[in-house]
Amino acid sequence: MGCNAEHSRLAADVLLRSDLRGIDSHGVARLKGYVRLWEKKRINTSPDIKIVHQTATTATVDGDAGLGLVVAPFAMQVAMEKAAQYGSGWVAVRNSNHFGIAGYHALMAVEKDMIGFAMTNASPLVAPTYSSERLLGTNPMCYAFPAGKYPPVIVDMATSAAANGKLEIAQRLGKQVPEGWIQDAAGNITTDPHALKSGGALLPLGSDADHGSHKGFGLSATVDILSAVLSGANYGPWVPPFVAFLDPPADPVGSGIGHFVGAMRVDGFRPVDEFKAHLDNWIERFKSSATVDPNQKVIIPGEPELEAEADRKVNGIPLVEEVANDLNVLAEKFGVEPMS
Amino acid sequence: MGCNAEHSRLAADVLLRSDLRGIDSHGVARLKGYVRLWEKKRINTSPDIKIVHQTATTATVDGDAGLGLVVAPFAMQVAMEKAAQYGSGWVAVRNSNHFGIAGYHALMAVEKDMIGFAMTNASPLVAPTYSSERLLGTNPMCYAFPAGKYPPVIVDMATSAAANGKLEIAQRLGKQVPEGWIQDAAGNITTDPHALKSGGALLPLGSDADHGSHKGFGLSATVDILSAVLSGANYGPWVPPFVAFLDPPADPVGSGIGHFVGAMRVDGFRPVDEFKAHLDNWIERFKSSATVDPNQKVIIPGEPELEAEADRKVNGIPLVEEVANDLNVLAEKFGVEPMS
Repeated sequence: MGCNAEHSRLAADVLLRSDLRGIDSHGVARLKGYVRLWEKKRINTSPDIKIVHQTATTATVDGDAGLGLVVAPFAMQVAMEKAAQYGSGWVAVRNSNHFGIAGYHALMAVEKDMIGFAMTNASPLVAPTYSSERLLGTNPMCYAFPAGKYPPVIVDMATSAAANGKLEIAQRLGKQVPEGWIQDAAGNITTDPHALKSGGALLPLGSDADHGSHKGFGLSATVDILSAVLSGANYGPWVPPFVAFLDPPADPVGSGIGHFVGAMRVDGFRPVDEFKAHLDNWIERFKSSATVDPNQKVIIPGEPELEAEADRKVNGIPLVEEVANDLNVLAEKFGVEPMS
Repeated sequence: MGCNAEHSRLAADVLLRSDLRGIDSHGVARLKGYVRLWEKKRINTSPDIKIVHQTATTATVDGDAGLGLVVAPFAMQVAMEKAAQYGSGWVAVRNSNHFGIAGYHALMAVEKDMIGFAMTNASPLVAPTYSSERLLGTNPMCYAFPAGKYPPVIVDMATSAAANGKLEIAQRLGKQVPEGWIQDAAGNITTDPHALKSGGALLPLGSDADHGSHKGFGLSATVDILSAVLSGANYGPWVPPFVAFLDPPADPVGSGIGHFVGAMRVDGFRPVDEFKAHLDNWIERFKSSATVDPNQKVIIPGEPELEAEADRKVNGIPLVEEVANDLNVLAEKFGVEPMS
């Protein structure tokens, strides 16, 4: 596509890390989508990514319409350099594209004994509480904390009740979804996973007003405001769609999509070994909790992804046939050797 | 109780602001609880609140067992001073007590054209996904953003499906609560609001695994780790109970309860007037959204509290008889003129 070697390696690393961690929806399965956006000239493969505004510990980065997969690590690097010097660093990003899994970026900080934060807005698919319109993306937020003898605690979550990937699985299998995931075009409760394609919407975390969907809406709004209103990116219904067959809104309110990343040095608050010893204790206490079903333990945030990573590093990444075929079509297009 | 005049005024301001904003559960109704904790020598009314560790933009504050109502504003002041100088400021707090509404503290930053953050851990009432134990508090988080012609956007939410206050109302009225708010002592689904008092637990935002309760658990864990593992306060099931008739755990893992507050200068990212103009636009777009029920508009985060404040500033704060009686008992105890 014209990315330089460094950007190519970095983007591939972000996608592969997602597959390794079991988040198949955000890995190489997305490569086709990025290529289509590039074909529509919506991704700049030679971006001049730069800081356009800053203080000692804050900055706004313009991604120059580059791949979010390379723009977000640039921003995280800026945040970490500021944190190394001043204790914390915070970077809002505009004029970017889909950045892959939030966890990748937050974990960059964890490797340096920092607490990592990463969030992004995304194409509008989610209706705020009481709304019949799709005004927000699944707007994920991620917080990552370094532990001692245990792997890091990683809270990496869409702020919708269900991620779009789960809906796609139900669509493929022809299964109904639980009430509380989506509504139809009129805003009625539905269990039909295809409702999203006919004008319906995903619901915020909490699902309905009685169960706190205004909180899911509030979290999603927080991600949107930090990522885009603060950076100068598009927000709410103006966020450009990820799918290339839908054009971006004709009346943008900013540039591209937005991210917000940050890092705080653990030793800006207490000695790293003390923090890690207590986080280990926290993990042990929660893992050893009595449970409703003795066969189902409490899952520490990030644990399923770590288990997938341990397994897939040894046994490889299983690809569904459709994705393998897509990759081979791309290989042919770009003159790369296909997978056998 | 022995608080100095400045602390007394500040604590009263936090409580009254809560009542003004319609959050009756966190206002003067709590005064009795604070007094009881003081009688048990669990609140120090002459605390030496101080910074015990810091960098340019991070700090840990020890509240010396003071009222959270005065400890948290001290911490927020430290965060704002750091933000004024370096762009952002972040303060973890240990050895504190219940800090009232998170929104009060976050709004201190908004008044200075900063984005405000405030969170706190709390007495264990919430069971993580799959757990039958109460290991987390309702652990609220608050994000507050200054707007232009509109009031600030304030996301101030417990990370449980329902706040404890809502349960107490159902208990008082003898009403059942919706499925998804609580479980009984064995972890079974129940609609009996009294189940919490017989060993049951509140559920995380998302209510069950199918609807993303692991996300609510993850958010609550984030609040607990930032507020307590980072500061050196008690976390998880070790957080001392707010009610004075329950003793704190005999094996503390830290000091008191913990908070985490922060501030970022808007102009650390983009000019304040640009940010406010776009946040106004964001608010207008969401307020004008098509809705499922034409009589129920989309509610901007913070709007209900602002409406209550506008009303109660004019019409006064209605007190339920029980609270009014409690206040008069306290008035008598401390030789203050009772309300008529």
